[in-house]
Parts: sequence; C-alpha cells; structure tokens
Amino acid sequence: MKIFVLGGDGYCGWATALYLSARGHRVAIADNFARRQWDCELGVQALTPIRTIPERLRTWSDLTGQTIQFLAGDICDYEFVSSAIQTVEPDAVVHFAEQRSAPYSMIDRNHAVFTQVNNVTGTLNLLFALREYRPDCHLVKLGTMGEYGTPNIDIEEGYITIQHNGRKDVLPFPKQPGSFYHLSKVHDSHNIMFACKIWGLRATDLNQGVVYGTITDEVAKDEALLNRFDYDEVFGTVLNRFCVQAAVGHPLTVYGKGGQTRGYLDIRDTVRCIELACLNAPRMGECRVFNQFTEQFTVLELAHLVQTAAAKMNLQVEIDHLPDPRVEAEEHYYNARHSKLTELGLKPHLLSESLLDSLLNIAIRYKDRVDRSLFMPKVNWRNARNARGAKTMSMGGDSFAGGFEDTVVSGKGNGRPAGHGD
Amino acid sequence: MKIFVLGGDGYCGWATALYLSARGHRVAIADNFARRQWDCELGVQALTPIRTIPERLRTWSDLTGQTIQFLAGDICDYEFVSSAIQTVEPDAVVHFAEQRSAPYSMIDRNHAVFTQVNNVTGTLNLLFALREYRPDCHLVKLGTMGEYGTPNIDIEEGYITIQHNGRKDVLPFPKQPGSFYHLSKVHDSHNIMFACKIWGLRATDLNQGVVYGTITDEVAKDEALLNRFDYDEVFGTVLNRFCVQAAVGHPLTVYGKGGQTRGYLDIRDTVRCIELACLNAPRMGECRVFNQFTEQFTVLELAHLVQTAAAKMNLQVEIDHLPDPRVEAEEHYYNARHSKLTELGLKPHLLSESLLDSLLNIAIRYKDRVDRSLFMPKVNWRNARNARGAKTMSMGGDSFAGGFEDTVVSGKGNGRPAGHGD
Repeated sequence: MKIFVLGGDGYCGWATALYLSARGHRVAIADNFARRQWDCELGVQALTPIRTIPERLRTWSDLTGQTIQFLAGDICDYEFVSSAIQTVEPDAVVHFAEQRSAPYSMIDRNHAVFTQVNNVTGTLNLLFALREYRPDCHLVKLGTMGEYGTPNIDIEEGYITIQHNGRKDVLPFPKQPGSFYHLSKVHDSHNIMFACKIWGLRATDLNQGVVYGTITDEVAKDEALLNRFDYDEVFGTVLNRFCVQAAVGHPLTVYGKGGQTRGYLDIRDTVRCIELACLNAPRMGECRVFNQFTEQFTVLELAHLVQTAAAKMNLQVEIDHLPDPRVEAEEHYYNARHSKLTELGLKPHLLSESLLDSLLNIAIRYKDRVDRSLFMPKVNWRNARNARGAKTMSMGGDSFAGGFEDTVVSGKGNGRPAGHGD
Repeated sequence: MKIFVLGGDGYCGWATALYLSARGHRVAIADNFARRQWDCELGVQALTPIRTIPERLRTWSDLTGQTIQFLAGDICDYEFVSSAIQTVEPDAVVHFAEQRSAPYSMIDRNHAVFTQVNNVTGTLNLLFALREYRPDCHLVKLGTMGEYGTPNIDIEEGYITIQHNGRKDVLPFPKQPGSFYHLSKVHDSHNIMFACKIWGLRATDLNQGVVYGTITDEVAKDEALLNRFDYDEVFGTVLNRFCVQAAVGHPLTVYGKGGQTRGYLDIRDTVRCIELACLNAPRMGECRVFNQFTEQFTVLELAHLVQTAAAKMNLQVEIDHLPDPRVEAEEHYYNARHSKLTELGLKPHLLSESLLDSLLNIAIRYKDRVDRSLFMPKVNWRNARNARGAKTMSMGGDSFAGGFEDTVVSGKGNGRPAGHGD
C-alpha cells in the first residue's frame, strides 16, 4: 500500500519508513527537519552520527532498489500539507510530525506554547487536508501512554465502559497527562475523535509507550542508514540514556524513588505495530485506540537491569537517585491493557540481556561523542522558566564554550521559539 | 476584592464587570475588541446598539462614582498579559477572553485553527503569568457544558468516581465536545488542571450552559450601558435568537427534531455565579469545576415557550424544523448535576413568562436593526469550508450589497483569520 510518513526523518519515523519500504509498501516521507534543529538549539547531538536525508535515501535506494519519496515542509503550513496529500495520494498517513519531548515542552512558556500550537495545528491541518482531498485515507496517529497518567484503576485502550447511577455508556478514557507535551497529545486525541465523528474519517490513535533501541534490520544494512540515538535529558528516552551512562561510567540518573511505572517497547516493535495498524484499517468514521507497548517496568527496575548487564561487560555503574524534576507519583498503581496489537499479530521483542548488550555496545562504540554534561536534568516542572538550551552551553565546560545568551527565552506572539519558522 | 475581568467588553464579560463593580469590588477589564471585529468580519451587528468602551466606562463612573480600570490588549501577547497581571494585582481573574462561538469555529480550517490556537495560547499565557507574578490569585475560567457532550450517563461536576475491575479512582469526567470551539475549552480544562497540579495554582472552571437575556440591574441604569444581544446564527444563543425571530414574524429556526437538551441560565445568574466563585476561592493547588446552569430544556421546548409568550403579545409565529447543520444527537438522554453553585448561595432566576416578555419587548424595540438574512444557518459541520462571513453579504439582499470576496477564507501560517493580528 502507499504509506505517507510525516516526520520520517526522526527517531521512530526513519525506522518506520525503512521498515515499510522493506516490506514492499510504497513509502513517502515529509519532514521539516525540526528535530535536527532542536538538537542545535539545545547544543546536543545524537550519540549516533546521522546522515543527511539525501544520503540516507540514496543509500537505501542503492541497497534495495526501493525509492522513498521525500517532501520537505511543515504540516503547520496548510498549503504544504494539503498539496502533499494530493501529490502522494496515500492509503495511510502515519503522523509522527510533532514535538515529542516532555522536558522540551516544560522549558518555559515559549516552549510550552510552541509545543501545543505546533502539535495541535499540524494535526488539525492534516485532518482538514484528509477531509478535503483524501477522505478514505487511514490516519495512523502517534499518541502516547502518557496521555492516561497514572490512575488508580486499570487503563483500557482508549475507551472505558462506565456504569453510573444505574446507567451505562462507553466513553473516552479520562486523561491526566503529565506535561505540556503530553497535554498536546490529549488535545490531538480529542480533535481526531471529533473529526472522525463529523466527517466520517478513520483513524488509529497509537498510545505508544517509551521506545528503546535503535537498530532495526533495515537500519543495520549500512552505516549511512543509522538511526538517531538520543541520550540527553531532554530528548533521550530513559533506557537509551541509562545505557550511554553505563558505557561512560556515569551513574544512572533515576528521578526520585524510581517507582514510576510505564509501558515500554523495542523500536523493532514500533515499526511492526505501525504496519499492523496500516494493514488493518478501521471502518470509515471509526476512531480506534491501541496501547502500543509490550512490557511495564519501573524506572528503578530498568536501572538495575542495565547495571547487571553492564557488570557482565566489566562496566561498574552506580545508581543515583536525584530529586525528581517532574511532578509525578514516584510510586503508584499501574496496569495498562495492551492486547489489541497482539491480537493483530504483534510478536513482541521483550527486553532481554542481548538487547541490553547490543545497546551498551552501540554506546561504547560511539562513546567519544558523548557529552556528559547532557545527562543531568535541567528542566524542573515546578519552574515557569528553566535555563535550558544554548544559554547553558557556556556552563557545560566540555562543549560549546561560546557566549550564547538568551537565544531560547525570547519571542512573543504565537509563542514559537525563535528560529522555528512559521 | 480586586477582580480582573478578561474579555470584559463582551456579552457576559460586560455584565459581569458592572455587577462586580456595583457589589463594591474593585474591577479592571482587559479586552482586545475581538468580539466587535468578528461582527465586522461576519457583516453582523448586535440587536442592541452598544457604545464604545470609553463611553461605557464614563457613564458607569458618572452614575455610580465607581471607576473600572481598562487595559486594551490581547492575552495571546504574553508581554501584555504578564504586565497587566503585575499592574492590576488581582485577587481573582475572570477569564472570558476567548472565541466562544461553535459555528464560528466550524466555518473552515482557518477559523478552527484560529479558535484553538487563540483560546489555548491565551489560557496558557494567563497560567504562566499567574505562576510568575501572582501565584495566589484565583483563576475563574469560563468553560462550557458543551465540553461534556451528551453521554448516556448522568453528568457530574468535573470529576467522576469510577469503579473498574475492583479498583476505584476519582477522575476527570470524560469529554465529548461537539465543535472545534468546544474542543478548545476541553484543551483549556486539561491545561488548567495540570497547572494547578504542578504549580499549586488555584482555579474554578465554570462549565456554563447557554446564556439568555441581556438586561441586568446595572445594564438597565442607562442606555449607554446596554449589553450586546446577538441573534445571528453564528454568535446568537438560541433563546435570544428565537425572541428576535418572533418579534419580526420570522419562523423559529429549530435544528432537526429539536430534542437537543442543554443546560440554560439567565445572564443575571451568570454574573452572580461569577461573584460566588470569586468569594469562595478554592484552596491552593485545587482545580474545582462547577456546572453553571439552572434549568434543562430541549430546543423545541424553548421554541414552544417563545411561541406561547409571543401569542399573548399578538405575535403569531411558526416553528420551522431545518435540517440540523450540526452533527449531534437530536434526541438523547441528558441529566447534568448543578448543585455546587446553589450550595454557595445561588438563587436562580428561572425562565419565566415575564422574562420572555422582556426579551420580546427588547427585540420589538430594536426590530428596525434586525437583518433577517442572519437567521438561517450557513455553517454546516459536515463541510470543511463554509461560505460564511463577508463573502455571503452580497447574497443577503437587504444589507451590505457590496462586492466583498474571499475576505474570510484566506491566510496561512498559524491559521488566524486575516486581520486578527498576532
């Protein structure tokens, strides 16, 4: 089928585009390179050296004979997204094209407003473009398990049957998101549900857990196809960050008690889940929700797993409990259903020692690229302004000792951080 | 106490500002005149002739000796809202400063994106300004009963206790809003709940029903204080519109079967509810939700009430059932709790014949200002683009026979309709 991957230059998007292409689907990517720009803004680079999009696509084509179409542009620009939908004529659109970091959204007002305006506007534009130009197309939207928060009841997949005062209804599962970023995804979910209702569009909202890993079969084919691997406190997901910390002998940075339980999945399952969703489209008018993760862990459990795997490689690593920069329960009930993707055929890659070995080996391979000043949390949920971004580079010591000042905290109007374009 | 009314030049905001001033509170207003501008954009004017803000405020001051402070600006501009909070130093901020029409938000993509970006950004800016400069201040935010939709269970006030698989939690009541406008209020509600949690702010989210009436004791003091009375299909609330239709002998425009049940309240109760919320602030960190309405009616019941009241004034009026331009259940279960404001002391003005007489008399008094072409719904929820606004004026016949074209459907970027500023 023809699948259009929005945000296909990012961590999950790139892996997904290659996987779908390898499986014989015709794939197009759109991206505005925002993710690479945020690295610049924050003075960060991925652990892994990632190539330009032309190099990536040329390599893929040379190796496989498959062409991936690329469209450069921002889905917040309706002219771009509407013409892109008309050009690509997709059967499914996979929408990764959002600002996806909770800490980034919590830096200050500017980043909070940017995250919500960017994500909500992009998704609204996409919904209108589908309604106008491709109403049968299946929208596969990346949500997050973080939309649910940590309620004291079992988390269902999107909807819950509620009995109340002798009556009953199936209603959207109540949401308690934990950052301005997670809130933006909740806003999207409500908007998508409504668009399906009024226009008869069809959508799958994938509430994804925390993704770990970086190597997929496709990415492994060539150095030029390498996926990004983020380990910094803003964009690095927790297990990836722990592995890099272990590789360079830095204590693992556990926030608070570490009893925070979340759903996790291997990036090899991310790409398969996306394909399963695409291959099994909902009926017209349906807004379907899948919880996309394979296992639950507490943060401390992950730290212990990494510590043990590292010890077997003769890496001694300590675990530090830092004051939690987030406002969240450090111990809580957590039990989230995740059976719908399994029913469609997902065979999970559960977290194993060999995967941890592989992650540690990647981290060791690129350890010369590690900037240790990026490990410690600098964005505190309790503050309205956090000195993150270029401003802090001059304090890091071992990188970018330049005199950047105030490049982040500026701007007014619609709240986009300076330089993000319009 | 010192109360800051954002959006104090609008329908509910103006009545509230005067009421609070009359009750001895020190009142400040902020407004960017967006509501007057939307009238221009749509080729509409309120039934009642409304004066400029300087005339309004001068008259109030002359009559009562009370000064209402006025600050002109847009809360989407953080410099404005943050300096305003520092200048006014309010004990409570009453936030009416949003685009509040469901049909306006459904005109096209431009208006949908504008409504959500405007409302979400303004509220986020306000939350950050309170966090930074006035953390003890009580935020009184206008939400809407439309956030809940029409679930098949009783609607609670903001939160519901859910028993599920042997466990129990109190969670936000699930939301099923029915327009891009109503969705914007749901987004706000989630953002406010989160800000109270992470920063310890305190807020009252007032989920208001449909407001009717225009005369309050304060507004009645002088012609120059007259409140706006909207009867057009975009901004006119249903009971007000029916009374104007009856006054000019136009059939009452019931959408579909008319079994749509909603909560309603008299504007004299709106202003009292706001004061009750202000006088009874929640504890720090609490995000409290009140359902602010006094009675439930179906649309058809309201039409019959107006028809009967009109007949006693020798006005014969018919009821037309039009195809419903909205996507909504035309008959459904509806039972919403609304006891918290009553417990705080609200004595409701229930809908009575004398109020209907008063509304009909206002409509008759100003009937020369009525533009009958504004009654019929032109915004259909099922369309991605509706020809509303200046473009349709040339078709109306009896007003503005000019050649405006495409003044509404234009623009790109952040989606604000042309001329709304940034």
